[in-house]
Amino acid sequence: MVLFRRLLGDVLRAQRMRRGMTLREVSAEARVSLGYISEIERGQKEASSELLASLCSALDLPLSVMLREVSDLVALEESLTSTTSSAEVVASAA
Amino acid sequence: MVLFRRLLGDVLRAQRMRRGMTLREVSAEARVSLGYISEIERGQKEASSELLASLCSALDLPLSVMLREVSDLVALEESLTSTTSSAEVVASAA
Repeated sequence: MVLFRRLLGDVLRAQRMRRGMTLREVSAEARVSLGYISEIERGQKEASSELLASLCSALDLPLSVMLREVSDLVALEESLTSTTSSAEVVASAA
Repeated sequence: MVLFRRLLGDVLRAQRMRRGMTLREVSAEARVSLGYISEIERGQKEASSELLASLCSALDLPLSVMLREVSDLVALEESLTSTTSSAEVVASAA
């Protein structure tokens, strides 16, 4: 199952690193605890819509761009998953 | 503030109606209570990543496509918001 929060976390971390920001800086900017942001980046916690907006604002990244990037990662994972499923079908039929 | 859950709700409802499905049918298919789905469609509740995957599966809609549609709606709203802000700046400067 492709989970939104895992790929969202990947995008948030990549965007933070692209800006050379530390977790501490994003935490201060977004007024969210460092530990919570870290859990979101690792895909372990769901981010509320308000938190998502704060994080995007702290990263100076439009929410639409962030969602587009997550969508692209999800699409990639969906294509890999469906390929695996097809391979499994072929293997089980053999 | 552009809230993810509100535009997600709009997309989920539009996709359900495009398929001519009732809340009851999506509820049975996704094994999620009807009231909860209704609240998600109205943007009143956050959907967990697992629930999002179930709803997309019930609607036979890839998660990536759903996120792309939400991203497009968010982008539209962001452009309207920034236009409004510019108009307000102009108005306050006049």
